[in-house]
Amino acid sequence: MPEFRKDPVVERWVIIARARAKRPQSQPARRQTADASLCPFCAGNESMTPAPVLVLAGNDAPVAGAIWSVRVVPNKYPALTEHGDAVPRQDGLYQSKHAAGVHEVVIEGPSHVSEIAALSEIEIEQILHAYRLRMLYLRGDSRWRYVLIYKNQGTEAGATLSHGHSQIAALPMVPKESLEEFEGAKNYYATAGRCVYCDIIQRELESNARIVTENDRFIVCCPFASRVAGEIWILPKLHSSHFDSGVSSDLGALAQALREALRRLARCFHEPAFNYFLHSNPLREPENPYYHWHLEILPKLQYFAGFEWGSGFYMNSLAPEEAARLLRHVVI
Amino acid sequence: MPEFRKDPVVERWVIIARARAKRPQSQPARRQTADASLCPFCAGNESMTPAPVLVLAGNDAPVAGAIWSVRVVPNKYPALTEHGDAVPRQDGLYQSKHAAGVHEVVIEGPSHVSEIAALSEIEIEQILHAYRLRMLYLRGDSRWRYVLIYKNQGTEAGATLSHGHSQIAALPMVPKESLEEFEGAKNYYATAGRCVYCDIIQRELESNARIVTENDRFIVCCPFASRVAGEIWILPKLHSSHFDSGVSSDLGALAQALREALRRLARCFHEPAFNYFLHSNPLREPENPYYHWHLEILPKLQYFAGFEWGSGFYMNSLAPEEAARLLRHVVI
Repeated sequence: MPEFRKDPVVERWVIIARARAKRPQSQPARRQTADASLCPFCAGNESMTPAPVLVLAGNDAPVAGAIWSVRVVPNKYPALTEHGDAVPRQDGLYQSKHAAGVHEVVIEGPSHVSEIAALSEIEIEQILHAYRLRMLYLRGDSRWRYVLIYKNQGTEAGATLSHGHSQIAALPMVPKESLEEFEGAKNYYATAGRCVYCDIIQRELESNARIVTENDRFIVCCPFASRVAGEIWILPKLHSSHFDSGVSSDLGALAQALREALRRLARCFHEPAFNYFLHSNPLREPENPYYHWHLEILPKLQYFAGFEWGSGFYMNSLAPEEAARLLRHVVI
Repeated sequence: MPEFRKDPVVERWVIIARARAKRPQSQPARRQTADASLCPFCAGNESMTPAPVLVLAGNDAPVAGAIWSVRVVPNKYPALTEHGDAVPRQDGLYQSKHAAGVHEVVIEGPSHVSEIAALSEIEIEQILHAYRLRMLYLRGDSRWRYVLIYKNQGTEAGATLSHGHSQIAALPMVPKESLEEFEGAKNYYATAGRCVYCDIIQRELESNARIVTENDRFIVCCPFASRVAGEIWILPKLHSSHFDSGVSSDLGALAQALREALRRLARCFHEPAFNYFLHSNPLREPENPYYHWHLEILPKLQYFAGFEWGSGFYMNSLAPEEAARLLRHVVI
């Protein structure tokens, strides 16, 4: 059974998940040839995955005969499992507990497409719709305090299967990164009386130095303190704390912004591997004026090295102003 | 000029260092063939580097005619520079300042050896001696509050040149990772009245479940909450806060422990890329009973993925008990 372990010195949680060592290793995953008979995520191979928890209908599916457009299934090699002893164990200075949670895979389409940016806006909107439906569903279980939705594209970004997919993790605690953001936003609001992300949006729109693109609902920009070369954030212009509380018509605009951002990234930096993740408000906190959900995209243009690991600082050799300029001007 | 930028929401510092984009890209660095006429770190090519700040004599140097065993030179593509405006800039919600600091390269030997584990104990002791001498020297400048010593071996670990080298960064602030450790250790001491690292050492020696090896002065173990598969820590058995305050005779024992740890790692996991870094007490704090310097080794057996980036949690599929068992039993 997977377990959470806490470092005895710092606030650092680790999930020790032995079962994940059994995952298929596809090297390199992103360039893997499509062999539909072997890929567990391709249409026709539905029996190779656990039974789905959500299936979106496939009227507009690009594969003839496919009856679905997006499937969400339990992760076959979960880092978290729903059932198990909830009692923490304290063994001297070492603290651990059963890694309770939900770990799901969002299969992004019936055909073997490795790059999400190659999908249409409608297809991407369907994926985002699945994210929102799962977050709404998981919110119903009072054990979970946070839902993290993330995507790994390419081997260097941690993907082990090339068929486009994202992942969803429901966790019994708010993870460190989200907690720090949440607290930071709360502190800013206490001092300034405004949402820090709303201020960032206003500032970025005024200066225009780091804007990649925008539409009616979203801005796409390279953040001021970009950790890595080509880092991109997508923020809703209208203040909202929870990704799953927005009106669903936003998802079309988000799909447009996400697709354009990823196409610009692919074109500008030779289809790099990347991760993206949604940062939304902790589940058990109500809609509020200080936290603002958003999506962060981290391309893998450089390796994370000893300096970053050892310090928690980041060293980035591409200024976000320059990255935004490149991304804005590339022809897609 | 490189600059520090602070994220407006969380306590996250980034160094925007444009000059580093000009570094030589050797792909893949670790397997790069030795061409001594091109390598700026090989004996005979001393003029290809900036003038050294430290040269250790080469009586026992393995290259005929080489007059040095270790050279420390300023980094040709520094992320930090010593001279520049120290005044912080606040531009609305964005805070930045000149990235003041020192960034040096430790060239680990005159001949083109890519893997530090291939060096002798005496040679590794010389490298550690250079680390200590530079830390002692940099301590003399009251602008620096922390010295981070780290090594990237292999492309996936961020190395851009294959000739064995480490790096030294003197910083005007204590980095987040070190600050969190320092505060965590202080809190543990306030409650338990003991050093948390001393307690870890005692506990590990008693249980023996995660010990890889030990000698009179050091233990080598896989930490209880290992972030990545095969993570290894080396801790001095005798309590000491500052790496550079110990008696220098320790360095022979540390060289023995480090060499054995890296040889076991290479043998066990097929010569993986890795990072290691020294965590020592912040410079301006005196020797104290709660902080305990140590060295952390993070092999690159898996890619850091969206889950880790998005949450600050780590997902590790190799339990440290199993990693220690493999490392202990491998024949070197």
